[in-house]
Amino acid sequence: MEHYLDNSATTVVSQKAAEAALRIMTRNYGNPSSLHLKGMQAEAELTKARKIIAGALGAMPEEVYFTSGGTEANNTALFGAAQAKKRRGNKIVISSVEHSSIMETADKLEKDGFEVVRVAPQSDGIIHADDIVRVVDDKTVLVSVMTVNNETGAVMPVENIFSAVKDKNSEILCHTDAVQAFGKLKINAKRLNADLISVSAHKVHAPKGCGALFVRKGVRIIPHQYGGEQEKKLRPGTEALPLIAAFGVAVSEFDIDANFNIVSELSAYAKERLPEIDGVRINSPENHLPYVLNISAGRVRSETMLHFLEELDVFVSSGSACAKGKASHVLSAMGLDKNRADSAIRISFSKYNTKEDLDALCNGIRTGLETLAHR
Amino acid sequence: MEHYLDNSATTVVSQKAAEAALRIMTRNYGNPSSLHLKGMQAEAELTKARKIIAGALGAMPEEVYFTSGGTEANNTALFGAAQAKKRRGNKIVISSVEHSSIMETADKLEKDGFEVVRVAPQSDGIIHADDIVRVVDDKTVLVSVMTVNNETGAVMPVENIFSAVKDKNSEILCHTDAVQAFGKLKINAKRLNADLISVSAHKVHAPKGCGALFVRKGVRIIPHQYGGEQEKKLRPGTEALPLIAAFGVAVSEFDIDANFNIVSELSAYAKERLPEIDGVRINSPENHLPYVLNISAGRVRSETMLHFLEELDVFVSSGSACAKGKASHVLSAMGLDKNRADSAIRISFSKYNTKEDLDALCNGIRTGLETLAHR
Repeated sequence: MEHYLDNSATTVVSQKAAEAALRIMTRNYGNPSSLHLKGMQAEAELTKARKIIAGALGAMPEEVYFTSGGTEANNTALFGAAQAKKRRGNKIVISSVEHSSIMETADKLEKDGFEVVRVAPQSDGIIHADDIVRVVDDKTVLVSVMTVNNETGAVMPVENIFSAVKDKNSEILCHTDAVQAFGKLKINAKRLNADLISVSAHKVHAPKGCGALFVRKGVRIIPHQYGGEQEKKLRPGTEALPLIAAFGVAVSEFDIDANFNIVSELSAYAKERLPEIDGVRINSPENHLPYVLNISAGRVRSETMLHFLEELDVFVSSGSACAKGKASHVLSAMGLDKNRADSAIRISFSKYNTKEDLDALCNGIRTGLETLAHR
Repeated sequence: MEHYLDNSATTVVSQKAAEAALRIMTRNYGNPSSLHLKGMQAEAELTKARKIIAGALGAMPEEVYFTSGGTEANNTALFGAAQAKKRRGNKIVISSVEHSSIMETADKLEKDGFEVVRVAPQSDGIIHADDIVRVVDDKTVLVSVMTVNNETGAVMPVENIFSAVKDKNSEILCHTDAVQAFGKLKINAKRLNADLISVSAHKVHAPKGCGALFVRKGVRIIPHQYGGEQEKKLRPGTEALPLIAAFGVAVSEFDIDANFNIVSELSAYAKERLPEIDGVRINSPENHLPYVLNISAGRVRSETMLHFLEELDVFVSSGSACAKGKASHVLSAMGLDKNRADSAIRISFSKYNTKEDLDALCNGIRTGLETLAHR
């Protein structure tokens, strides 16, 4: 039996979402831009998915733009906002624990002449509003802070951060990478005071290759891609309709409260059982999102443990999948010592997980520590 | 019965390609960047598809980068080459009949300070090498000419153009948008002398939302998207694996010669039957790719005729799907008079079409002209 505990890296596509993709690929295969009936039928699928995703963001359908994923949404948000506002100022504020698609995009903007300020979390792994507001000034055009950290599950007080930022300078565009929060926490664009929100399909039981960017009505950003009339020219290119339709179905299946209860129970069970193992320590902050649990497994390096566990059909991560084996910039930002950072394991849940998965994990880690630490 | 004659806009996904996507979505759903077995199994799918697509381009697997489609491939090629070479010069040469994802990207580069020269086709709809070479100089860093025009099927002498360009200035990067040629004509990157080639999945019976950019080994372009380590950092973001696997399968099903014969026969039949209808004229050049046939239907506007035909389950296009109803810049570049351009219809074939589809089309156009022209 497979114990897939790497749901922050990616998730299995739900049966209904996969069926929607299949139906689009083989039957409703028209191009939404085609003027004939087959095009209109395809466009109707697009409209339907857009409405569903807007609903889940507390947004209007015309505020949702489909992208090829979270990375493209983040790139479009940062490049688009920075370019649109560059006459007003050149300072961008991000947290130092963002996903690589924010970190690297900010690096590129820095190379292109923007000033980028990276705000570290406090030792609890959380970005505090005060620390952001302190560095925001007249020249700041954009603030980007993730809703939930992908490695630790730290929930950032984005609502407080954005309202404090706007109090200081109402012209600043506020973006949140909500990839790890979407479908797990209730997101409401208005309540968040967000101008831009990135989400991804493949973290919520929809296929890889699709995401969306919320752009608040009235906010103008410069497109990052050029071509046809699709997505109001903000994101041209034939829409990835099989994925978008599947994304819509997966989002319509959201049951945030029920899933939160399932996963909270699993997470609590893991936090009870895992520290019983000698050497295991919890890295996630106290109030982390239960979907993500970061631990250190003692004297065994993350990657070694990960491969030991895979032999037992237990799949976890040594950090962010996108960082493929690199040392975690998130754990170092939290001030974890090297040994602890080097043995970090990310366990990430979905509604499909069970206690059996966690028993397999605990047994695996216990055996792993016994077997590997003495080599 | 449905008569889908709009295959240049998009195609139905082949059964086997759709099955591959389904298998990835529901079973082999790992993230190719994950270090564990499930990640490696996903990565193997990626490698397999990359090999197949490289093979179809006469390229090495490491020269193929997956994108979200033809539009992104074109954006990456143009922005990436221009940025990489900007210290050497700022002139870019394109044809005036490119797809909007080239035209609009070039417009943006022009705004950003590049000089863009747009070379018109001769009255045969074809871009001639002499006309390109004439405007190429020491300051030219990039030439981009499509392999096959999406509205007329005009086959451009890309091989001659690129070799003449390189003879004049070997430093120039040569890009071709081969979206309408891939799978229809044999493409060999080396023989073409191409540095960059864009292709799209959804034109070749694979799903929408996927494409690829060939980048010749040794050629360095600047990424257009920033994030993780995927696609050697040229195109980061979790790979759209269901689509990529399906793309691989669809390309493995290419039977270029056999399909060319099927479609040539259909195209010849259409060119025989259609001009028998009073007022119908062929716009495609003599040696057009048989997959695309552009005609003018007389005194009835394209869109009116298109909607008349859709009532009969015959689906054609009034131009490029991505231009959604706009006047064709391609037909005007060829010097067609307004009436003829306004009544243009694009018929585009796939291997799944039959003579019955064309009989339905001919009857439809005949009836349409009788019914609509007298209103």
